[in-house]
Amino acid sequence: MERTDIPAAPALKPGRGRRPADDVRRAALAAAAELLLAEGMPSVTFAKVAARAGISKMTLYKWWSSPGGLAFEAYFRVFEQTLAFPDTGDIRRDLTGQLHAFVDLVNRHGAVLAGIIGAAQSDPDLAEALSAQYVRKRRRLAVDRLARAQEAGQIRGDADLETIVDQLWGACYHRLLMPALPLDTEFADRLIANLFTGIAPRTRSA
Amino acid sequence: MERTDIPAAPALKPGRGRRPADDVRRAALAAAAELLLAEGMPSVTFAKVAARAGISKMTLYKWWSSPGGLAFEAYFRVFEQTLAFPDTGDIRRDLTGQLHAFVDLVNRHGAVLAGIIGAAQSDPDLAEALSAQYVRKRRRLAVDRLARAQEAGQIRGDADLETIVDQLWGACYHRLLMPALPLDTEFADRLIANLFTGIAPRTRSA
Repeated sequence: MERTDIPAAPALKPGRGRRPADDVRRAALAAAAELLLAEGMPSVTFAKVAARAGISKMTLYKWWSSPGGLAFEAYFRVFEQTLAFPDTGDIRRDLTGQLHAFVDLVNRHGAVLAGIIGAAQSDPDLAEALSAQYVRKRRRLAVDRLARAQEAGQIRGDADLETIVDQLWGACYHRLLMPALPLDTEFADRLIANLFTGIAPRTRSA
Repeated sequence: MERTDIPAAPALKPGRGRRPADDVRRAALAAAAELLLAEGMPSVTFAKVAARAGISKMTLYKWWSSPGGLAFEAYFRVFEQTLAFPDTGDIRRDLTGQLHAFVDLVNRHGAVLAGIIGAAQSDPDLAEALSAQYVRKRRRLAVDRLARAQEAGQIRGDADLETIVDQLWGACYHRLLMPALPLDTEFADRLIANLFTGIAPRTRSA
């Protein structure tokens, strides 16, 4: 149980021969994600993940110092896969699709995310992991897509793109973390309508 | 220490006569707020608050079941007093002033607020208190001011006012709770600029 410094090419599992390390790692993350989304954070144990993925617990210890670290990585992997930023060439349509997917995912599995963000407020290590592995990555992907739209003339040249991230996804996190009103696809549509059209009356917007 | 069911008109403190209950309550909250903002949440004890406010600990036990409850109420009282929603008749100027005050307050004392919001994610009682005593109250005050601006023709009739709350203050909470970029008055100005003008190019906004 204390062996954390295992050589690079372990063959701990007898039987069907060595699987490439990337495959094993992917299988572990997939198994952890399935457990996490089906049964919640406490269900992610090294024993359960190892059994489900067909790998040894030793292999898990090699990569993750705790089941929490494995669950954390698995969770954000799911978010990344579900929340791609499409580029059909129409920014408003792409943002609508992406925000609908985001709202759906948060409604199904947002309690785990809210718990992680909540715990990060009093846990500097978790805050750093959340920032590096999730917050900053997601911001960068969003701003990249918004920048292409700005170059294509679909977003005003003087609009601040980082601020748009806070006014779309940040507004959703507000309803998740400080709940008062529904976080649904209608809300996502209103976020986009307010922000694209502007809330000033037309006669004043020139 | 166990007496929590004290009659309505206590005269527990000898000397300068009875102070009206409202005065005593206000003094307790003011003292708790001073301690909280100067020295942090753990400094708010019944003994310290009683000494600073010139009242008895018994009086505090009458109103608050724990120092945490007293600190919580005191904290949001400070926020309420600092974060009035002015009405000069110019919504954009009023929002700018209010958001600047909000950002300044959050930058000075936001760690306590972030801690409360964080803890609320795994504490249903705290979540309920936060929702009732802070989130819903603040939303209502903001929407009231925005509704007057809409009636005055300073906000489009089809703009969703509740959504504006998420896109201004909610966007600030996003930078507080999932930090990546500064939460400052320049950010507040960009929030307002994006939202009032709209981020769509002018030729498409008609």
